[in-house]
Amino acid sequence: MINRLTEKIQKTGAPIVVGLDPMLDYVPEQIQKASFAEYGETLAGAADAIWRFNKEIIDATYDLIPAVKPQVAMYEQFGVEGLQAFQKTVDYCHEKDLVVIGDVKRGDIGSTSAAYAAGHLGKVRVGSQVCSAFNEDFITVNPYLGTDGIKPFVKVCQEEKKGLFILVKTSNPSSGEFQDRLVDGKPLYEHVAEKVAAWGEECMGDSYSYIGAVVGATYPEIGKVLRQVMPKSFILVPGYGAQGGKGKDLVHYFNEDGLGAIVNSSRGIIAAYKQEAYARFGAEHFADASRQAVLDMIADIRGALEGKI
Amino acid sequence: MINRLTEKIQKTGAPIVVGLDPMLDYVPEQIQKASFAEYGETLAGAADAIWRFNKEIIDATYDLIPAVKPQVAMYEQFGVEGLQAFQKTVDYCHEKDLVVIGDVKRGDIGSTSAAYAAGHLGKVRVGSQVCSAFNEDFITVNPYLGTDGIKPFVKVCQEEKKGLFILVKTSNPSSGEFQDRLVDGKPLYEHVAEKVAAWGEECMGDSYSYIGAVVGATYPEIGKVLRQVMPKSFILVPGYGAQGGKGKDLVHYFNEDGLGAIVNSSRGIIAAYKQEAYARFGAEHFADASRQAVLDMIADIRGALEGKI
Repeated sequence: MINRLTEKIQKTGAPIVVGLDPMLDYVPEQIQKASFAEYGETLAGAADAIWRFNKEIIDATYDLIPAVKPQVAMYEQFGVEGLQAFQKTVDYCHEKDLVVIGDVKRGDIGSTSAAYAAGHLGKVRVGSQVCSAFNEDFITVNPYLGTDGIKPFVKVCQEEKKGLFILVKTSNPSSGEFQDRLVDGKPLYEHVAEKVAAWGEECMGDSYSYIGAVVGATYPEIGKVLRQVMPKSFILVPGYGAQGGKGKDLVHYFNEDGLGAIVNSSRGIIAAYKQEAYARFGAEHFADASRQAVLDMIADIRGALEGKI
Repeated sequence: MINRLTEKIQKTGAPIVVGLDPMLDYVPEQIQKASFAEYGETLAGAADAIWRFNKEIIDATYDLIPAVKPQVAMYEQFGVEGLQAFQKTVDYCHEKDLVVIGDVKRGDIGSTSAAYAAGHLGKVRVGSQVCSAFNEDFITVNPYLGTDGIKPFVKVCQEEKKGLFILVKTSNPSSGEFQDRLVDGKPLYEHVAEKVAAWGEECMGDSYSYIGAVVGATYPEIGKVLRQVMPKSFILVPGYGAQGGKGKDLVHYFNEDGLGAIVNSSRGIIAAYKQEAYARFGAEHFADASRQAVLDMIADIRGALEGKI
């Protein structure tokens, strides 16, 4: 899957991922009205609204991008119905040949991580049958429990040729509270990054490992260091756009081959029509606004990379 | 909810929680057969089997215990259908007046944590309506992202009078890899514990805070230290039984009032009929085996506590 991600990035020329994190506030009124008319103002109505919203954005952008990253929390808040919308979104993105990064940030003790890995990336045995559930291509994973909480995910990645992005340095303001603390003279995130590199050696694709890392766009100097610590790991970079990161800050997340990083934007793309820059599209043409925001983001990042490559 | 948990522990005399973590392997053949006959060997069949299994165990034990802790991964592995079984389990436990601790180990940046908090503990606005989704009473939370990833959960706990157990020191063998690393001369888990105590001050119940901690039974010396660091936090103690913890190891997780800790056993209770000690019940009477295992666990922990209180 890392080979496929790399190929798709090269083909589209777009090292970006669209974060499908639909807050109900982002969904234009005409869609909310249609969904509520069918299902009422219920969890099922909300789930239908975010699914319709996603579908239009996917239809308007899939030819430009290699991958999407649905944030499962935005679906999970609407309960079982919300997770049905998550599943529909994953399946539809696969129909459109997109790589799907499930932003689930799971992680637990070994046997429990094995269950998460089966449900999100792998298969589960039911009687004499083997079934797959959510079936994303990559997921994000939390490393706080250490190696035996990560290994079951790595094992499924080896079996299924899927991948992980393990949290190393997150994009939020208080990420330093624990992640930056010095351990033997180095920040904790560097120790985690060294483990990511080691875990990644066990499942290499052609040029990059199946095991990547999450490093926030909001800490570019740290990104530069971590690029060196994990040369074979793809870095998933959240925090571009709405959270403050800009293309020029991100060049050091990439390797000299112009690969090795994939930059996420969520709100900045899916709620583009609410920004002044794209207000001309209006709520009715929200998906066209998203397409334009994708084009602008690609241009920003390619422009920044041209200086480097 | 922490007051209710405390009252229920005092009423039952049982500072324990039954971990409803149903692996399909644990479910006796007669139940699997019935479910597969109705739904086939599908995710829906598996979900029905674990729900039937749970229901019998709940019916056989609810009068003895204050709380249950379903591990969501065991449901999530069966996809949307599995999460329907999770929801049914939560709702049925509420019918039986049990406190439900959703073992979900979520945690993300602020806006995302807010969505998880709404979906698991709180409510979500849909048009003019307010809906609740999974509606557990407590959930477990991962602290790796720091304060701004935790605060949205705390806020919902204040609004809804619900609670958290934040991972401090987990029960798995490699938990020390990051959690035990020395930061300013103290292990990282102590720094996390200090934060848990501070966050907890913002939402106090009568004697204990709504914000508790997870500290594994497998590290009793650490439990003793952390009890002092977080005097007002309830400690959820996984790792009893199948993972190796014993009642006598756990006395220091409790305060002098005999409260302050709640010990979880999952496999040791729900798959008791598979152990030699309870083999006499047979697969047909698996729920009676679980009841006996609960009685034995309560006796073990009360016996150990009698020396202390």
